[in-house]
Amino acid sequence: MNKKYTADESQFLKQIGSNVRKLRKKIDLSQEDLALKCDVDRSYMGRIERGQNNITVLTLKKIINTLDIEVSEFFKVKAK
Amino acid sequence: MNKKYTADESQFLKQIGSNVRKLRKKIDLSQEDLALKCDVDRSYMGRIERGQNNITVLTLKKIINTLDIEVSEFFKVKAK
Repeated sequence: MNKKYTADESQFLKQIGSNVRKLRKKIDLSQEDLALKCDVDRSYMGRIERGQNNITVLTLKKIINTLDIEVSEFFKVKAK
Repeated sequence: MNKKYTADESQFLKQIGSNVRKLRKKIDLSQEDLALKCDVDRSYMGRIERGQNNITVLTLKKIINTLDIEVSEFFKVKAK
């Protein structure tokens, strides 16, 4: 994954990733367990949380469902 | 694009698509103009609006920015 993202795009992916990480920790789920529940590889989940992957909306939906939050609420989370 | 989606996934993609269409019409933008502004093919935008494509979050972000709405607000729109 050596795609070049604009600063704005990169920031958006990082925001998604940090929201995933924050919400995952909130429900005491390990990265490995989240990956398992979402049918993705653990290393892939790691890249998502670091904002390195431009995932599809269906992968995002699966993650958000697992994190037990509404999609609109997910995008309101301001994780650091 | 002959991917098989679950009913739930398909419904999610269709919801995104109809929200895009609704918001695009609200700002009086043609499908062609929206496609141009988002750097995608017009036929691809048609498939997105019909919920036939599992787009990436960055494509979705580009569309949502063009539609001049917040991502969290976009997911609250209940288009029919």
